[in-house]
Amino acid sequence: MSTRNIVRFWEWGKKIICVGRNYADHAIELKNAIPSEPVLFLKPPSAYIREGSPILVPFYTSNLHHEVELGVVIGKGGTAIPQSSAMDHVAGYVLCLDMTARDIQDECKSKGLPWTLAKAFNTSCPISDFIPKEKIPDPGSINLWLKVNDILKQSGSTSQMIFSIPFLINYISEIISLEEGDLILTGTPKGVSSVQEHDELQAGIDGIVTMTFKVDRKS
Amino acid sequence: MSTRNIVRFWEWGKKIICVGRNYADHAIELKNAIPSEPVLFLKPPSAYIREGSPILVPFYTSNLHHEVELGVVIGKGGTAIPQSSAMDHVAGYVLCLDMTARDIQDECKSKGLPWTLAKAFNTSCPISDFIPKEKIPDPGSINLWLKVNDILKQSGSTSQMIFSIPFLINYISEIISLEEGDLILTGTPKGVSSVQEHDELQAGIDGIVTMTFKVDRKS
Ligand SMILES: [Mg+2]
Ligand SMILES: [Mg+2]
Ligand SMILES: [Mg+2]
Repeated sequence: MSTRNIVRFWEWGKKIICVGRNYADHAIELKNAIPSEPVLFLKPPSAYIREGSPILVPFYTSNLHHEVELGVVIGKGGTAIPQSSAMDHVAGYVLCLDMTARDIQDECKSKGLPWTLAKAFNTSCPISDFIPKEKIPDPGSINLWLKVNDILKQSGSTSQMIFSIPFLINYISEIISLEEGDLILTGTPKGVSSVQEHDELQAGIDGIVTMTFKVDRKS
Repeated sequence: MSTRNIVRFWEWGKKIICVGRNYADHAIELKNAIPSEPVLFLKPPSAYIREGSPILVPFYTSNLHHEVELGVVIGKGGTAIPQSSAMDHVAGYVLCLDMTARDIQDECKSKGLPWTLAKAFNTSCPISDFIPKEKIPDPGSINLWLKVNDILKQSGSTSQMIFSIPFLINYISEIISLEEGDLILTGTPKGVSSVQEHDELQAGIDGIVTMTFKVDRKS
């Protein structure tokens, strides 16, 4: 479709593929094993919000967590993409929050249920402006941070990722074909914590982007 | 977008929301509890295939199962859609197979992992032609069936569903907004079983539609 603009991928992109436990320090803080292969889950595009729209606490959770993550925007689709050419499929990046109903996720894990209610609800994927690929020449060594009401909660380097971006693109595309406009969330460093109605979340990539989101409850 | 045609929703629709354990007899055959609320999981639109394309067995499973299901195609989006007007949001139906890597799903369940590898792989959502809403005046009392190599494996009435279509549309849209072109898979009756390379799957809705898919392995 010639009218699609990658800069506004969130309006037409079809998939959000998220990687769990991709930073060892975060896996440990949640008492999870260090994974031997990526843990994948999905959010639907209806989960996207942009600055100016609030993060809405789902009615069924009392422990909504922030997870700040680097998002990789796919510019060229493919299946079984080799690691060696994986970066040719990347159009750019966004800073993302993988908002997580932690109490529900714990319940899903203990009951062997899918993570949908914990991860895929409306407003569960706040994102920054699109960052063209050229602005981040080395996505494997940038610093992500997140503050809640001006208090620093998360700060970590993408160099701590267990599985690199080329590894993830290869791994995912062997199983689920990637398409233009898809987004890969690459996992969160340690420091996740609970947010409440009226909190203000600010997040950034050092030297590249910042974004701010308010937390609200559906009235 | 004026160029979108609901009859070809699989080319542009953004979500596939699946309901697990929605027939008591199937929940029992898998030794699962009868759910008190719907079990939801997601497939990406890259999982769609149409007749003429094979179902490909993922490299990591040795127990790929068929699940024949009624799919509900959303024609008009919404959030927190009341049950009383839910059917106004339906454009039509498709017959679907929720292809499932059962061994992987069992592993995900026991490890508390998301179901993505079990449910969201390429070719995991074969679908029939679009069936306009008028052709199925009562979607709560139709018969679905599935044969493997001409042997009947599944046969059940949608009257056995635990959660009705209006209930599901209301329940899902309270959490995940529905959009035009989204598909809801409504669960499978009992009789799921393993398929192998070269098997032929035939499925139908009595008096409405039939479809045929071959099982293959990626070469
Ligand atoms: Mg999922
Ligand atoms: Mg995360
Ligand atoms: Mg199913």
